[in-house]
Amino acid sequence: MNIDFINPFLSSLSNVLETMGGIKCQIGKPTLKNSTTSKGDVTGIIGMAGKNIKGSLAISFSQAVIIDIVEKMVGEKVSKIDETVIDMVGELTNMTTGGAKNLLLEKGYDFDMATPAVVSGLNHKVAHMAKGKIILIPFSTQEGKFYIELCFDETK
Amino acid sequence: MNIDFINPFLSSLSNVLETMGGIKCQIGKPTLKNSTTSKGDVTGIIGMAGKNIKGSLAISFSQAVIIDIVEKMVGEKVSKIDETVIDMVGELTNMTTGGAKNLLLEKGYDFDMATPAVVSGLNHKVAHMAKGKIILIPFSTQEGKFYIELCFDETK
Repeated sequence: MNIDFINPFLSSLSNVLETMGGIKCQIGKPTLKNSTTSKGDVTGIIGMAGKNIKGSLAISFSQAVIIDIVEKMVGEKVSKIDETVIDMVGELTNMTTGGAKNLLLEKGYDFDMATPAVVSGLNHKVAHMAKGKIILIPFSTQEGKFYIELCFDETK
Repeated sequence: MNIDFINPFLSSLSNVLETMGGIKCQIGKPTLKNSTTSKGDVTGIIGMAGKNIKGSLAISFSQAVIIDIVEKMVGEKVSKIDETVIDMVGELTNMTTGGAKNLLLEKGYDFDMATPAVVSGLNHKVAHMAKGKIILIPFSTQEGKFYIELCFDETK
């Protein structure tokens, strides 16, 4: 997968966290995952579907990191993965993909976004079923790491 | 949500299980869920995105039920939720939605399908983020129950 396709998702998430929560992230190096599974305490998943591209994006957070993000984004102290956290993960997944969609349209990638689903449960795993490789991108904040995963069928 | 929109998903999944695995299902009555979460041991999630409809479908199985389905569909005995099971859940999610898409096109609902993601982990929960109500439809087989959940934003 072209790095030009991945970068809009990374900059979109990074911008949302910085402008809305004052959270600065360091974006790590994208790697290919050989296993089909990811682990996190809470994960937002969104599907994208268009004529020349289809796939799924997941953003997976540990409990400590998402609790810190919720506090900085909405000023609310939460102690566990509750409805506020789940809504925030859904919103972040949506905003990341919406921002990337606008940037990618300029590059000729057009897709519609599905609505996100948010998965929780300690040690859950997410397997992407697109045929392409899974690209894993680590983000670091002061509280720890979280991950974007992208997996696409490209038919362009 | 219109029952005409839901039925194609139910008949599509029922047909796939019967024609490919000889598995007869009883389809229960659709109900509205007030909570946003579902529980299962393994869940396939797929996003749908089109001009007049967007949302997500989940199919959630207990371990006992999906192990039985895998054996009947591909003749393979598995003892836990492994890669074979995850692939089967992804395929069932894809085939259910693909079959429904064709039927719904005739009714004026046009959407593209994303690729599925499959979530596993005991007691995981799935929250749909579309604005519409969550429709829950139970299916019964000899081995137990499984569930389809549908949640859509309708803008038509």
